[in-house]
Amino acid sequence: MTRIAIVGVAGRMGRTLVNAVQQDAGATLAGGIVEPGSSLAGADIGELAGVGKLGVTAVDSLEAIVDDFDVLIDFTSPQVTLANLAFCAKHGKRIVIGTTGLSDEELAALDAYRDRLPLVFAPNMSVGVNLTLKLMETAARALGDEGYDIEVIEAHHRHKVDSPSGTALKMGEVVAESLGRTLKEHGVFAREGQCGPRTDKEIGFATVRAGDIVGEHTVMFATEGERIEITHKASSRMTFAKGAVRAARWVADRPNGRYDMQDVLGL
Amino acid sequence: MTRIAIVGVAGRMGRTLVNAVQQDAGATLAGGIVEPGSSLAGADIGELAGVGKLGVTAVDSLEAIVDDFDVLIDFTSPQVTLANLAFCAKHGKRIVIGTTGLSDEELAALDAYRDRLPLVFAPNMSVGVNLTLKLMETAARALGDEGYDIEVIEAHHRHKVDSPSGTALKMGEVVAESLGRTLKEHGVFAREGQCGPRTDKEIGFATVRAGDIVGEHTVMFATEGERIEITHKASSRMTFAKGAVRAARWVADRPNGRYDMQDVLGL
Amino acid sequence: MTRIAIVGVAGRMGRTLVNAVQQDAGATLAGGIVEPGSSLAGADIGELAGVGKLGVTAVDSLEAIVDDFDVLIDFTSPQVTLANLAFCAKHGKRIVIGTTGLSDEELAALDAYRDRLPLVFAPNMSVGVNLTLKLMETAARALGDEGYDIEVIEAHHRHKVDSPSGTALKMGEVVAESLGRTLKEHGVFAREGQCGPRTDKEIGFATVRAGDIVGEHTVMFATEGERIEITHKASSRMTFAKGAVRAARWVADRPNGRYDMQDVLGL
Amino acid sequence: MTRIAIVGVAGRMGRTLVNAVQQDAGATLAGGIVEPGSSLAGADIGELAGVGKLGVTAVDSLEAIVDDFDVLIDFTSPQVTLANLAFCAKHGKRIVIGTTGLSDEELAALDAYRDRLPLVFAPNMSVGVNLTLKLMETAARALGDEGYDIEVIEAHHRHKVDSPSGTALKMGEVVAESLGRTLKEHGVFAREGQCGPRTDKEIGFATVRAGDIVGEHTVMFATEGERIEITHKASSRMTFAKGAVRAARWVADRPNGRYDMQDVLGL
Repeated sequence: MTRIAIVGVAGRMGRTLVNAVQQDAGATLAGGIVEPGSSLAGADIGELAGVGKLGVTAVDSLEAIVDDFDVLIDFTSPQVTLANLAFCAKHGKRIVIGTTGLSDEELAALDAYRDRLPLVFAPNMSVGVNLTLKLMETAARALGDEGYDIEVIEAHHRHKVDSPSGTALKMGEVVAESLGRTLKEHGVFAREGQCGPRTDKEIGFATVRAGDIVGEHTVMFATEGERIEITHKASSRMTFAKGAVRAARWVADRPNGRYDMQDVLGL
Repeated sequence: MTRIAIVGVAGRMGRTLVNAVQQDAGATLAGGIVEPGSSLAGADIGELAGVGKLGVTAVDSLEAIVDDFDVLIDFTSPQVTLANLAFCAKHGKRIVIGTTGLSDEELAALDAYRDRLPLVFAPNMSVGVNLTLKLMETAARALGDEGYDIEVIEAHHRHKVDSPSGTALKMGEVVAESLGRTLKEHGVFAREGQCGPRTDKEIGFATVRAGDIVGEHTVMFATEGERIEITHKASSRMTFAKGAVRAARWVADRPNGRYDMQDVLGL
Repeated sequence: MTRIAIVGVAGRMGRTLVNAVQQDAGATLAGGIVEPGSSLAGADIGELAGVGKLGVTAVDSLEAIVDDFDVLIDFTSPQVTLANLAFCAKHGKRIVIGTTGLSDEELAALDAYRDRLPLVFAPNMSVGVNLTLKLMETAARALGDEGYDIEVIEAHHRHKVDSPSGTALKMGEVVAESLGRTLKEHGVFAREGQCGPRTDKEIGFATVRAGDIVGEHTVMFATEGERIEITHKASSRMTFAKGAVRAARWVADRPNGRYDMQDVLGL
Repeated sequence: MTRIAIVGVAGRMGRTLVNAVQQDAGATLAGGIVEPGSSLAGADIGELAGVGKLGVTAVDSLEAIVDDFDVLIDFTSPQVTLANLAFCAKHGKRIVIGTTGLSDEELAALDAYRDRLPLVFAPNMSVGVNLTLKLMETAARALGDEGYDIEVIEAHHRHKVDSPSGTALKMGEVVAESLGRTLKEHGVFAREGQCGPRTDKEIGFATVRAGDIVGEHTVMFATEGERIEITHKASSRMTFAKGAVRAARWVADRPNGRYDMQDVLGL
């Protein structure tokens, strides 16, 4: 049984993670963290999550549960995640990170931990998203340099703060790598005004923010006469939470290293 | 019978317009213009368009056919269109303009002709697009200030030079006006990086450029629990050409004024 | 304050209705019914719904709460609904019915109550669905007999038992009526094998059943050169529940009659 | 250079095939067949196709050009195709067949030729469709028996006579085979009335017929929390024609056998 602790356990993703741990026969809930000074410290995590009393109380620092857990799951913000990563490395823990919106510097800081602990970092933990990444790679290899234009279209709820989504960027990267391109050089993130015709090798991104859309991503390959579209639509956070718990179980007995969901799923 | 002349008759849109005039029982092809010095001057316009010899030859200036036509149809570029507008005003002609990508200054210049001749200006001439504009207005009035987020998504072929499309901007304007908003203040044309959560009143645009997509536009209204989407998909230029010929017939007996397709269709 | 009772309060729709009543400032929860003999009789309805103790207990017959409520909300099955309708008519109550899948005989039985009590019957209670019905009617009037083919496409979760959905049928009926057609004569509910080319006036239906899709409906109008699509996507039951509570408040002071959501929303 | 003859050269698909042969550097147009007694026998095939005079005239029987061609391309009807197949087998020719709507008996008759000549038979010749077949197989293997519901949705123009399309059936078969299922047992081609909840292993089909839709196909894999959709959209017949010419060149030096586009493309 993998003993899992959850950061941000009072938030919507945190509560969904509690549900997913409860449904997973190979995992047990070992602790949950709320913000320092939160009035929810001391509350029962199960009651917070609406699954009934679990006998595990929320605390406001990792130190308080350092002996209780094996793997930390963190879907928070870049700075909080980097602090938790340092804590896990120091104390021999493992970590599963679903945080998005990291800057290049923050990504480099995260990557520097690859030799210090086993960590899974994926902008999107769902099984479906990771399968579509594989399909996109296959399609890009087959079509990409034969006159097919590539566009990434994504839609999320009104509360999302970063654009494009981490998952959309990941899709763009996978496609770019398959074709010997880079998003730095070929990514087009905004088109406005008289910007001229499309270039052959650009990878365009289009972003929609509206309502309660959990997350929709499409990669389109289009040429004279046809289009191929590979689409993933998430309908609830449970998709990500189930994937994160699966990653936590998987990383529990891995050596130090930085892994992603392709590794977890063996794709 | 409305006598119609077509600018840019050797281009793809020009040739489609020739087809549409031929199919319309109330219109007759009176002339066609090619670029000054083009080797196609002198060619039969019907043969250029692939509909068989019509006995009307392409010329490279409007002066050469000034007595032959009543209404000019122009789907070209802003500068060419403004020059043709001046010509038509001077010579008592009427004009139907489908050109897109005009700057604010060019729009003002065009608008200054509203008292000098009857002109139809619409970024999109199709019957379907103009019906959807009406539907979008109805939806915006019913939903807009009740917590529904509004986004405009459009896709066009790789050759299109302006973003968003004139039609997408028109859709945004129609929705904005219904709600007492303006695109100047509330339009969001690019989202990139850590741009924070969506604001309530913004109208977002997302643009796709790929392959041979003739033109697809969606306005989405989304809130907690539901989405309404109104979509138009053009599958061939014939849609625009048929609408332009219908506008030419309609404007043939109107007084001076600037009209759009809502006027033409009586919506 | 409208006093509302809910049938099937232990089910997923019932619990969502409890949430919606709690969020509505003009309504109060007056009772909830579970199946006869259910072990949940006696449970607090708020706890059943996950919104905390409300001090109202579930009962297993309407008789037990006959003096407590003004309007009954019923999203159950045809036979249960007809029995509850008889009860409400006898006891001077009002009813909001969201049940789907009624046979022609059951519809006739329901309709016979139109002079005996105020009743709202709508296969889909969401504000957005009812707006799209209005948009579809507008589009059908504008396009329908000008060579546009009409198709209704709908998708729902794997548990749905009737096809097409009540909402899809309602959309088809609205469009058919606008054009002087009927689904009896022009509805095409299955195409299989060598069925020949489409006829001009048919209204086709296509049905998808998969996963957890809450409910998606599109009416497409397509002709040579273009398509118009009007789409509604529900992302949670809350859409239907909020509409049902709005209907309950509205019907509370109406005379006897059969109403639908167009009446409730004043469309 | 592969010498190609085309059956039905005066039809829309036939004329598109002429275009595709003209654009292909490795193929030459060797002949074209029109219906027996057609007034178009004797016409120049290039002029028929709108590509200018080619010096090859249409004839009304294969016998007339038996010495001129190596590979026949046939997108007609089952009975015509079977007759042409017999002719090709007898005279040492090769054949590429894009005809759809064959009955089980006709399919068996076709298959009986697999030892008598090299033949390519594919309900859809486009490169994109055949890539998506590969992607669908990959997705089905990864997801299919883990609680994902599978649906095939397709849309075509109003003139199409068979439902579902040959391509949709092929997609369903590919997915079914990957999962040890069969369409005979698990295919659901119509849902109408009170048909009960979806079964786990069924593969559903939904069909849309409207306007000028060239051909759109989606296979959806949906479960609690997410959907994966793999979509192909054809925007012109050129997609199929280019694939057919590619198949004709490929089959020109193969041994006897029945091949499909996966073979041609090496997927």
